[in-house]
Amino acid sequence: MGGSIIGERFVAISFGESHGRCVGIVVDGCPAGLPLNESDIQFLLDLRKPGQSVITTQRKEEDKVEIISGVFNNHTTGAPICMLIWNKDSDSQPYEMIKSVPRPGHADYPAMIKYGGFADYRGGGRFSGRLTATLVMAGAVASKLLKKTLGIETVAYTTEIGTVKAGTITPVNIATRYNNDVRCPDSRAAEKMNDAILQAKRDGDSLGGVIECAASGLPVGLGEPIFASLESDLSKALFSIPAVKAVEFGSGFAGSKRRGSENNDVYMMKSGKVVTKSNNAGGILGGLSNGMPLVIRVAFKPAASIAKSQETLDVSKSVQVSLSVPGRHDPCVVPRAPPVVECVVSMVIADHAIRAGLIPPVLK
Amino acid sequence: MGGSIIGERFVAISFGESHGRCVGIVVDGCPAGLPLNESDIQFLLDLRKPGQSVITTQRKEEDKVEIISGVFNNHTTGAPICMLIWNKDSDSQPYEMIKSVPRPGHADYPAMIKYGGFADYRGGGRFSGRLTATLVMAGAVASKLLKKTLGIETVAYTTEIGTVKAGTITPVNIATRYNNDVRCPDSRAAEKMNDAILQAKRDGDSLGGVIECAASGLPVGLGEPIFASLESDLSKALFSIPAVKAVEFGSGFAGSKRRGSENNDVYMMKSGKVVTKSNNAGGILGGLSNGMPLVIRVAFKPAASIAKSQETLDVSKSVQVSLSVPGRHDPCVVPRAPPVVECVVSMVIADHAIRAGLIPPVLK
Amino acid sequence: MGGSIIGERFVAISFGESHGRCVGIVVDGCPAGLPLNESDIQFLLDLRKPGQSVITTQRKEEDKVEIISGVFNNHTTGAPICMLIWNKDSDSQPYEMIKSVPRPGHADYPAMIKYGGFADYRGGGRFSGRLTATLVMAGAVASKLLKKTLGIETVAYTTEIGTVKAGTITPVNIATRYNNDVRCPDSRAAEKMNDAILQAKRDGDSLGGVIECAASGLPVGLGEPIFASLESDLSKALFSIPAVKAVEFGSGFAGSKRRGSENNDVYMMKSGKVVTKSNNAGGILGGLSNGMPLVIRVAFKPAASIAKSQETLDVSKSVQVSLSVPGRHDPCVVPRAPPVVECVVSMVIADHAIRAGLIPPVLK
Amino acid sequence: MGGSIIGERFVAISFGESHGRCVGIVVDGCPAGLPLNESDIQFLLDLRKPGQSVITTQRKEEDKVEIISGVFNNHTTGAPICMLIWNKDSDSQPYEMIKSVPRPGHADYPAMIKYGGFADYRGGGRFSGRLTATLVMAGAVASKLLKKTLGIETVAYTTEIGTVKAGTITPVNIATRYNNDVRCPDSRAAEKMNDAILQAKRDGDSLGGVIECAASGLPVGLGEPIFASLESDLSKALFSIPAVKAVEFGSGFAGSKRRGSENNDVYMMKSGKVVTKSNNAGGILGGLSNGMPLVIRVAFKPAASIAKSQETLDVSKSVQVSLSVPGRHDPCVVPRAPPVVECVVSMVIADHAIRAGLIPPVLK
Repeated sequence: MGGSIIGERFVAISFGESHGRCVGIVVDGCPAGLPLNESDIQFLLDLRKPGQSVITTQRKEEDKVEIISGVFNNHTTGAPICMLIWNKDSDSQPYEMIKSVPRPGHADYPAMIKYGGFADYRGGGRFSGRLTATLVMAGAVASKLLKKTLGIETVAYTTEIGTVKAGTITPVNIATRYNNDVRCPDSRAAEKMNDAILQAKRDGDSLGGVIECAASGLPVGLGEPIFASLESDLSKALFSIPAVKAVEFGSGFAGSKRRGSENNDVYMMKSGKVVTKSNNAGGILGGLSNGMPLVIRVAFKPAASIAKSQETLDVSKSVQVSLSVPGRHDPCVVPRAPPVVECVVSMVIADHAIRAGLIPPVLK
Repeated sequence: MGGSIIGERFVAISFGESHGRCVGIVVDGCPAGLPLNESDIQFLLDLRKPGQSVITTQRKEEDKVEIISGVFNNHTTGAPICMLIWNKDSDSQPYEMIKSVPRPGHADYPAMIKYGGFADYRGGGRFSGRLTATLVMAGAVASKLLKKTLGIETVAYTTEIGTVKAGTITPVNIATRYNNDVRCPDSRAAEKMNDAILQAKRDGDSLGGVIECAASGLPVGLGEPIFASLESDLSKALFSIPAVKAVEFGSGFAGSKRRGSENNDVYMMKSGKVVTKSNNAGGILGGLSNGMPLVIRVAFKPAASIAKSQETLDVSKSVQVSLSVPGRHDPCVVPRAPPVVECVVSMVIADHAIRAGLIPPVLK
Repeated sequence: MGGSIIGERFVAISFGESHGRCVGIVVDGCPAGLPLNESDIQFLLDLRKPGQSVITTQRKEEDKVEIISGVFNNHTTGAPICMLIWNKDSDSQPYEMIKSVPRPGHADYPAMIKYGGFADYRGGGRFSGRLTATLVMAGAVASKLLKKTLGIETVAYTTEIGTVKAGTITPVNIATRYNNDVRCPDSRAAEKMNDAILQAKRDGDSLGGVIECAASGLPVGLGEPIFASLESDLSKALFSIPAVKAVEFGSGFAGSKRRGSENNDVYMMKSGKVVTKSNNAGGILGGLSNGMPLVIRVAFKPAASIAKSQETLDVSKSVQVSLSVPGRHDPCVVPRAPPVVECVVSMVIADHAIRAGLIPPVLK
Repeated sequence: MGGSIIGERFVAISFGESHGRCVGIVVDGCPAGLPLNESDIQFLLDLRKPGQSVITTQRKEEDKVEIISGVFNNHTTGAPICMLIWNKDSDSQPYEMIKSVPRPGHADYPAMIKYGGFADYRGGGRFSGRLTATLVMAGAVASKLLKKTLGIETVAYTTEIGTVKAGTITPVNIATRYNNDVRCPDSRAAEKMNDAILQAKRDGDSLGGVIECAASGLPVGLGEPIFASLESDLSKALFSIPAVKAVEFGSGFAGSKRRGSENNDVYMMKSGKVVTKSNNAGGILGGLSNGMPLVIRVAFKPAASIAKSQETLDVSKSVQVSLSVPGRHDPCVVPRAPPVVECVVSMVIADHAIRAGLIPPVLK
């Protein structure tokens, strides 16, 4: 299969470029009969949209989704759902120079070699963070499907920006995660994170961070042993998000430092349901969901495009040059990423739930 | 596709169970003309084999590979290569009890629910670490293919066991990684790691750890933007290894705490080649290889099976019971995992190299 | 994978409905650097377009293709190519009645059951012949790719309409196949075919027919033994065309009546090339191309929608009713199908040529 | 995916060579809980086995299946089922000469070019009819699954050998199809067919023929519009059988000569079920099953290997030579093919039934 396709039964095919005519995605395999219209998707796109606060890029994109197939009478039909956003506010001028001067930390150089100069380099082309809008569109459909059929809910929120860490996260403060610009449930840490981003921006620099994601309501047994473990498919999808450089489940790296007796989660009954006392497994054992909430942490590197002068190479002349990346960029992509992570995780869960026969081809 | 298949052009299909007749794998898509015989694979299997030292399980398995298709006159033919190992020293007796008493930290409970009691639970069945032998078989073929055609070399070694960390890793000491039982290039740390494992074993407990993997010689541009990024496909494959709970590339989680100006890797020329001064990207930008060595870190949780008494649930009676996991187990799986990680990474690189047209269907 | 995806390396994903907003297709896997613009595709779409002669439906569709991704500076970029046609002249009124009265010979009834009433039934929805426009778009790209890189040429033409058969077909008259409305190289037979269609139309009835396709210039060895034989993948793609009910290669059904000594093609040298004297194999042996032209024959059933009164069932009331299918229909779809067959065959050959490493990821 | 894999949810991966150690297949995706043991498969293999009558090859193969994974306590476990047959009676001596002298009508020449001389040419290697034993093994599992869960029954029988055609076929005589050596329900025609084969054998020649297949009990709505139409996937699988050169559904080529009013099947109620009076559609409309029996006809070319002297080319010397194909061959493969066709069709139906959510992942 081509490199732009993901999933087995809930399949998504991405297309479009940052400064081309549009960015879009086709979802093949969504059951028929799901109530769906553009507002179900727009709502999540708006949470990802640029230009909403001082800490995000000033590119103004309405990011208005259009569903151009697969929905009839406000319900999915079982046919492929094609969704797209027409690009509006793109300024390709600053990108002329990167044709031969690759930005450090960006895909420019490998893309130049891989595509022999034919790639649409404007705005980063296919490698732009703008493509995450397509993940949100596909994931919004998955998310609605999961809520309606299985009651599965996925939430993602910022826990770290640079060196600022959130304190205690509770179900109550998670519900408020979109109340601040950095999407952190801990409102006090959120302020410090905001300040840190503004400081980095003033310095012409950027910051990275960590997003945590939790999904509750999963049935027991999603995933397949070995190659289609839930961790395998979730990580594959999460690493599709530009700037993600690490993914961990449950206790992750911290768990690797513990003894088995500390890290194993003890089974018990609670309200007639088998649960575990702790959740170091992050809801996944042997690659299968165990009925506990999924807990995933995703690390984003600091945005590569910075105004601050950096050394790089003019590959056409093989000489060292200094570069201040032009264009309008996010000093930190993390605040825009929680809806993306939520959507990507929903997409994978929907795929596995259909594979497991838990969602029928037609919803009544 | 079924859950037991991975890859696009270099495709592997896993089969077999821990205490069934065999464990095996079919590789479809390996070019014709690669010199290959069983010793190319046995060499790597032997490095993974149980029962080699006091710190691994005492299950004695010869783990002798048989190639039963796809090789003729000591060369691959272009046909699917089926490789298998007949199981010999399995003792299924201790597993009778786990039919209703799931081991904490194991796949027992979700597998019980998923397969409605039909799964081969003996020795963990499909969820056993024994299945990593199939990954080694497929990866050994990939590894030989990459060495012969593109000069790519992949190495993996232990950097952490429990709370013991390796010191400086150099190309020189990496070459000695298989000289000690824990597979750590830092021989002094290796001793402490060995002691830590023995102590855990004496306590009837287990340890986890971290393995680092480096692959050098990759051409620029392997991987596809979005869904088939090199990180996506590598992580998918790595999370197929039982007990892996986290994967990071380059500076990973640490990088997320830095500023862009610190984390971006500066381009420069070196011996007529475009390189970067640092390698925080771990050799991957925008999901594409950038010509620098891949650097990956993989976290393993402590082995779930421990002799130490643990609380759990007898699900048939819904009562809390205490369990001391019977059978012969590894107190720490990390020392046996470096060849597995090497092989899995080679498998993914081979797949992408073929997709990129860099390895022809017939080797001359 | 979803049911709307075909191909391994040259992958096509279809979307859209007959009376929805558009019909479209995404091509993933086309190499970068292929000169491509809309006129390359429009040219073939125009040959398939309705409303061009008295023997086709009077639905007037401009069928103007738009490339909305994957092409930059008039060359493919290596990114997915999304192409679509906005629907213009759809009249959905006549379709209200078929919601409960399935047309004989149409997908109405099984689609009604499969999608539980949620399918977009207007104009046949996903089952409409209009969807063949998407096959033409994808195939036009494949066709240009094959011509430019390997010199492969695919032609298709009508050899039978109802009981009228074409006489001798020669390379010279094949070149004139688009000079008449029925697309038959034998101009005398073409007239009779035209008359037969007009007569059927006057009778409120319809006709079927046979299209032959020949592809020349294929390298030896395309295809894979067993499941991805060239015949397997060609037939899979050809049966995607609505109304196709039979496919044969080379001597096909006729060959099954012969003896081996008559049907085997004798090898010989010609102009320094290994060829066969006859071509009963239709260019494929053991599922692999043998260097001779592919020869394929495709049977189309008579169009199901006819004005003539037919008996059918009102499934909502379980009563027999008589139906004269309303709407504007083709009395025979065969004259519009040759470009579709050409394109579908090109698509499959392109896929296999890329798999065989014969077309590089970047064209210089 | 590699060329040796078929299916989406009921996936089969073929391996092995005619004169290698074995031929085998892995089935991934079979639900857990299906009662299965070797006799369920052996029964069908025995119907395909060589050496059973004077009209088949005298190669004596026991063709004893071994299930080496995926079955536990006589039930499928949900894990991949690997089945294989060890080759016993292979005589590779006669094949030395075909290394440079390709047999007319065989894959020898394209395989020689494709694999650069590395293919296992002995006995035809991967291109041998012997590989159909792997199709039978996978299909036997599918067949049992379909019978047990949905009551679907698939039968195939010979209707033509050379120019001898069967007369009327009825459900009653279909039940007797395995009572004669040619597997023809019409016992009188069967005798003539037998004679024709013996005559061809005496002449050192071979015959082809036609097999018809009918599958009853299918639910309405299997298949997907466009690329995964039931006809698409059935034909893809059927053309995997060596020697198949044509496939038609329902009225097929004959239907293309009729008018719509003759070929359309009229809907009516019968015993409370929607049926059609005729079945020219062969049970498939718009690529979807319509509840009527599937009717498929498959044309086999005359066996390519004949004792009679044929002209061919010694490609190493570029000279014309005459060849009498050595070895033990079937003068007509058709009598051994009905179980193969039955099994291949069952495999595709099982795949689509699982995709449609009609067979659950665990059978109770």
